[in-house]
Amino acid sequence: MNHAARVRRLQTDLSGGKLDFLLVTHLPNVRYLTGFTGSAAALLVGPSGATLFTDGRYIAQAKQEVGNARIVIGNKAPMVAAAEWLVEKWKRSRSANAFLGIEPESLSAGARDRLAALVRGKARVRPAPPLIERARMVKDADEIRLVRKAIELGATLFPVARAKIRPGVSEFEVAAAMEYEARSKGAEGMSFSTIIAAGPRSAVVHGRASEACIPRRGFVVCDFGVILRGYCSDRTRTVHVGQASRDARALYGAVLEAQRAAIAAVRPGVTGAEVDEAARAMLRKAGLAQYFTHSTGHGLGLEIHEAPRLAAGQNEKLASGMVVTIEPGAYVPGKWGVRIEDVVVVTPTGCEVLTGRDKEKELVVI
Amino acid sequence: MNHAARVRRLQTDLSGGKLDFLLVTHLPNVRYLTGFTGSAAALLVGPSGATLFTDGRYIAQAKQEVGNARIVIGNKAPMVAAAEWLVEKWKRSRSANAFLGIEPESLSAGARDRLAALVRGKARVRPAPPLIERARMVKDADEIRLVRKAIELGATLFPVARAKIRPGVSEFEVAAAMEYEARSKGAEGMSFSTIIAAGPRSAVVHGRASEACIPRRGFVVCDFGVILRGYCSDRTRTVHVGQASRDARALYGAVLEAQRAAIAAVRPGVTGAEVDEAARAMLRKAGLAQYFTHSTGHGLGLEIHEAPRLAAGQNEKLASGMVVTIEPGAYVPGKWGVRIEDVVVVTPTGCEVLTGRDKEKELVVI
Repeated sequence: MNHAARVRRLQTDLSGGKLDFLLVTHLPNVRYLTGFTGSAAALLVGPSGATLFTDGRYIAQAKQEVGNARIVIGNKAPMVAAAEWLVEKWKRSRSANAFLGIEPESLSAGARDRLAALVRGKARVRPAPPLIERARMVKDADEIRLVRKAIELGATLFPVARAKIRPGVSEFEVAAAMEYEARSKGAEGMSFSTIIAAGPRSAVVHGRASEACIPRRGFVVCDFGVILRGYCSDRTRTVHVGQASRDARALYGAVLEAQRAAIAAVRPGVTGAEVDEAARAMLRKAGLAQYFTHSTGHGLGLEIHEAPRLAAGQNEKLASGMVVTIEPGAYVPGKWGVRIEDVVVVTPTGCEVLTGRDKEKELVVI
Repeated sequence: MNHAARVRRLQTDLSGGKLDFLLVTHLPNVRYLTGFTGSAAALLVGPSGATLFTDGRYIAQAKQEVGNARIVIGNKAPMVAAAEWLVEKWKRSRSANAFLGIEPESLSAGARDRLAALVRGKARVRPAPPLIERARMVKDADEIRLVRKAIELGATLFPVARAKIRPGVSEFEVAAAMEYEARSKGAEGMSFSTIIAAGPRSAVVHGRASEACIPRRGFVVCDFGVILRGYCSDRTRTVHVGQASRDARALYGAVLEAQRAAIAAVRPGVTGAEVDEAARAMLRKAGLAQYFTHSTGHGLGLEIHEAPRLAAGQNEKLASGMVVTIEPGAYVPGKWGVRIEDVVVVTPTGCEVLTGRDKEKELVVI
């Protein structure tokens, strides 16, 4: 990872945005800029480089992971340590009235108040635009390689689910088998709580695996992802246990058509809203629009949900190198639900589906 | 769980604190007050009760989980929906100049700015004290029962680790076996990324399991916890692979003595700082104070880290019903480290160790 280049790019963005320093407090952003994976950190980026503030638990880890930032180990909250370090620096240089940017979506309201009090008279605290999130939208070659690796590992979990899903087996048992596979193959963890939603629970969009058992007949939504070397995978497959009725096949077919339409719509220059509408229009035609209660997709990388969003009102244009999920669904409360999700990387001419072939998405009946 | 009583208590605290409404945005607090486990929610608590705002993904789940709050499903961010709902309410009642409390540590600086803009002219936004966190420090009988259940399940993972830890096996494999056991027994997930830190990595305090292999000889720190019905367990055991040198035994013994001293210090009325000092004094006596680079413990319950903290400067007094970890350690960078951790519940006369007998903590040599 070229962390140094990322910090340099940010420095350019900062001076363009009239900020003297940016206090980076969103941990995935700290990792993106330095490689540091600890759970307590603040990174101060200014004209002379980057300084990482963390605490005594991370002495060894910070030294091992970070090559492009000064490391300051303190016994206070990293944000407080960063503020005091800045004030000390300004004392010596006698400069004042600097502009200190913060990440307004990751710094809490309480922390901003404390920060403003610490630098009062020396600097003014300003919400910075999402500079790092914008940079992170377009993945570089190293990142795409890591996303591919995570997805490759994630792909091995669906056969495990297929083998485990049988009437009477609990959703927990299915998730456990998948997660064991993931961990045994080196995943650092799951990118979110594995969703195994069987029978009527398939209508619960975020139906994390529960003690409920797989019924004799019905859909089972399996939505799962792993984290490998910091990068997330994400994939949803819906299978059917027992004979699938004509209605069940129609529902599944409509969602699959919607997903294909959305994938076909992905290319540089198209907005997130347009991709969302491509899926939604198909479901509308099938009379299912009211049952598609979430958006079509989201970026993923160091976080399972990141920019851009593929949803109504999103005018961000897709660009080559963005990695997004395409995951339409239809959920009839109390009855059943279907979701089909793949991850695609935007290419100069369209997109490449990273999570498997189209064939794989034909309705699996168990 | 008596969610209704918890909301009533909060209503009393609010009127005492001169707040008309509290916008609860910290999800564990939303769960504490209503039972709702979705990932997008805001709860507005006011004189006439509680209203939960969530989005279309959680229609079925909210109805199923929440019995003591009105449910409003919107297609905007829950906080925005709550603000608009309030403004609408005030329009009808013509009242204004209300005080709307926020949770300053969980609401982002950006969200507070948006909230203030939405209610401008109608209400003033004020940071509320951590009312719910304070209430949550003392667990009720239902909660202690759930923590015990989580800990009981968590306890079954250490034998799995002992059986799996052998020279040449990767840390990942050890973690995978433990996590499979947890999931198979019904855990919703792990309460944090399992730490398996072997050989020189045992000096990395937060050494999440990695691809590194167990060496022929050295310490292995195992720090692990499960989530069961929302409640967390937490436990650390350090074992030694191969013959333990006299120095290794001395290090282990010193940390164990420090842990015993801290446990002996726990009783109602004692401060977090005093418990921390009890452990620290023992390690100081052994010449190891500089290697104890973190605090002695933390509360746990719906979150893996919650109030109170057992650390220098913490003057919060322990009270019967609080549940805290006691986890001193000593880490010599690049060489080795030891940590021993148990969870205790404060009783009227001292504390009860929930995570096992003292016997279990004699150094295990594998």
